[in-house]
Amino acid sequence: MLNITLLGTGGGMPIPNKFLSSALLRYQSRKILIDCGEGTQVAMRVNNTGFKSLDIICLTHGHGDHIFGLPGLLSTMANSGRSTPVTIIGPLGIKDKLEGLISAIGFLTFEIEILESPKADLFIQLKPQGLVVTEHTVGNSQTSDIILSTLNLDHATPCIAYSMYIPRAPKFHLERALAKDIPKIYWKRLQKGETVKDGNNIYLPKMVLGKARPGIKFSYVTDTRPIEAIPDFIHKSDLFICEGTYSNDEDIEKAINYKHMIFSETANLARLGKVKELWITHFSPSIEDPKIHINNVVDIFPDTRIGIDGLSKTLAYPNSNDSED
Amino acid sequence: MLNITLLGTGGGMPIPNKFLSSALLRYQSRKILIDCGEGTQVAMRVNNTGFKSLDIICLTHGHGDHIFGLPGLLSTMANSGRSTPVTIIGPLGIKDKLEGLISAIGFLTFEIEILESPKADLFIQLKPQGLVVTEHTVGNSQTSDIILSTLNLDHATPCIAYSMYIPRAPKFHLERALAKDIPKIYWKRLQKGETVKDGNNIYLPKMVLGKARPGIKFSYVTDTRPIEAIPDFIHKSDLFICEGTYSNDEDIEKAINYKHMIFSETANLARLGKVKELWITHFSPSIEDPKIHINNVVDIFPDTRIGIDGLSKTLAYPNSNDSED
Repeated sequence: MLNITLLGTGGGMPIPNKFLSSALLRYQSRKILIDCGEGTQVAMRVNNTGFKSLDIICLTHGHGDHIFGLPGLLSTMANSGRSTPVTIIGPLGIKDKLEGLISAIGFLTFEIEILESPKADLFIQLKPQGLVVTEHTVGNSQTSDIILSTLNLDHATPCIAYSMYIPRAPKFHLERALAKDIPKIYWKRLQKGETVKDGNNIYLPKMVLGKARPGIKFSYVTDTRPIEAIPDFIHKSDLFICEGTYSNDEDIEKAINYKHMIFSETANLARLGKVKELWITHFSPSIEDPKIHINNVVDIFPDTRIGIDGLSKTLAYPNSNDSED
Repeated sequence: MLNITLLGTGGGMPIPNKFLSSALLRYQSRKILIDCGEGTQVAMRVNNTGFKSLDIICLTHGHGDHIFGLPGLLSTMANSGRSTPVTIIGPLGIKDKLEGLISAIGFLTFEIEILESPKADLFIQLKPQGLVVTEHTVGNSQTSDIILSTLNLDHATPCIAYSMYIPRAPKFHLERALAKDIPKIYWKRLQKGETVKDGNNIYLPKMVLGKARPGIKFSYVTDTRPIEAIPDFIHKSDLFICEGTYSNDEDIEKAINYKHMIFSETANLARLGKVKELWITHFSPSIEDPKIHINNVVDIFPDTRIGIDGLSKTLAYPNSNDSED
């Protein structure tokens, strides 16, 4: 299960009564934050998320409305007694930006590891100390709790999209294991996809496992023009959060100039990507009430919600009867 | 006239529904900001102050709750089309802190001049482009619109207090100038305190000017223990804004440990400094409703207001009949 909370939905600059775009993901008892503009730590307090178990911060890019909340958040995490490392992931150039911001903090009680512009998927594992990010493929995806992918976007500065996939192990068929007299001590290894040799006996995972089952997919795209690679990247996401900086088609020139999207472009990406649900976020401060523009979206992609601060949802594996063999 | 607005009254870290301690001063059509924690630009929006005419930012010290709003505020000022320089004043070490924060902004449309740990009073003059700070004494105080003084405080990091004095020129007695046949072209120079020689005639300012008249004094003290020099520094301020991080006398140990003050210490400084009015600010997030602790203050110094976000007052010269000769 993956819980997602939109901490804020604003873009450009912080304004009263609306936090800047960011999202908090809860996996088991740990947390991942996407973007951290000025005020994000206050939005976390409003949503009672706590600070201690935040292990990973994913930054889409280095513009102020996505990073200026970091020095404050990291300070507050230190004041909350954090001691284990925090991993910050971001696009090309993010290290330089963050060095300045972090240098202004003074004393921190924990280490910060910055992963700039990851070249391949990242593997996130839940360990006793929290979520740990591994840069290189160690074992197959089934040993990873979350597989994190990134995509280079088209914005005024290097910017990346994130997608997270929580794989699901195939169903373990107890009756088959018993019928084949497979010793119980090997069940766990077989379930993990391992082949087990015991004297002359070779036990294969397929002897006890059902078909591959789809996991949970979540994707987050901001700030960018609607590039061709996005539909593939977000393909069949259970939830797709995407920027829609401008609500009306008439704003297309602004969207092109500032490298953002209009609502209808966002909806079209969701349609092409065959996602289950779309939440739009990152509204220009000029949009007073984004939800009145829902009609610009639903004809193109009906399963859309216009984001509001605090919108939250838990994604679970689909009903286990759906994909059994 | 000097208008003062408390933009926020919180201390330590930003929390919902209370901005971090800072104050905005309006002099003529221009502005001076004291401190800039995370969210200060949002507080400015709440108070409809605008961003363009902010010429000077005074920082008490480099702790996050007083400076982490700077990158966002400066970005917003750039987006608002600012082109003239901004002066930032702060204590020892502030340059290093700010360099990191400012480097994360990227592009700014205006220059920033940082005055670190001023050794003497600063002179602020209202010029066509805005308020301009001069480090050394140029002319006497009467050519300065505002005289800015600082005082080293006792906090965990270098920290300074600010006091601003708006001098008032003595009254110009027209009837004396006419009686003495002083040519009109010299009146302005005499009013400014200049002696004028015209052939054999020597005109002295005292021929046409009344007694010295008191100006407007404002002082701002946070974060510190109550050191001995403060009462002199704030002496007879029309308004004294001062930290009271903890409300109760029982918190004296915390106040000593973290180098802050309890309300009664704050009130005592106001009493010793013979100020006209005290506003307390910079409340610990642990104080839910600061104003219920007013009784810890008024016995010591009755003219106290427990600060609330948005509290505002305009200080004017005292009634001109008060101090005539």
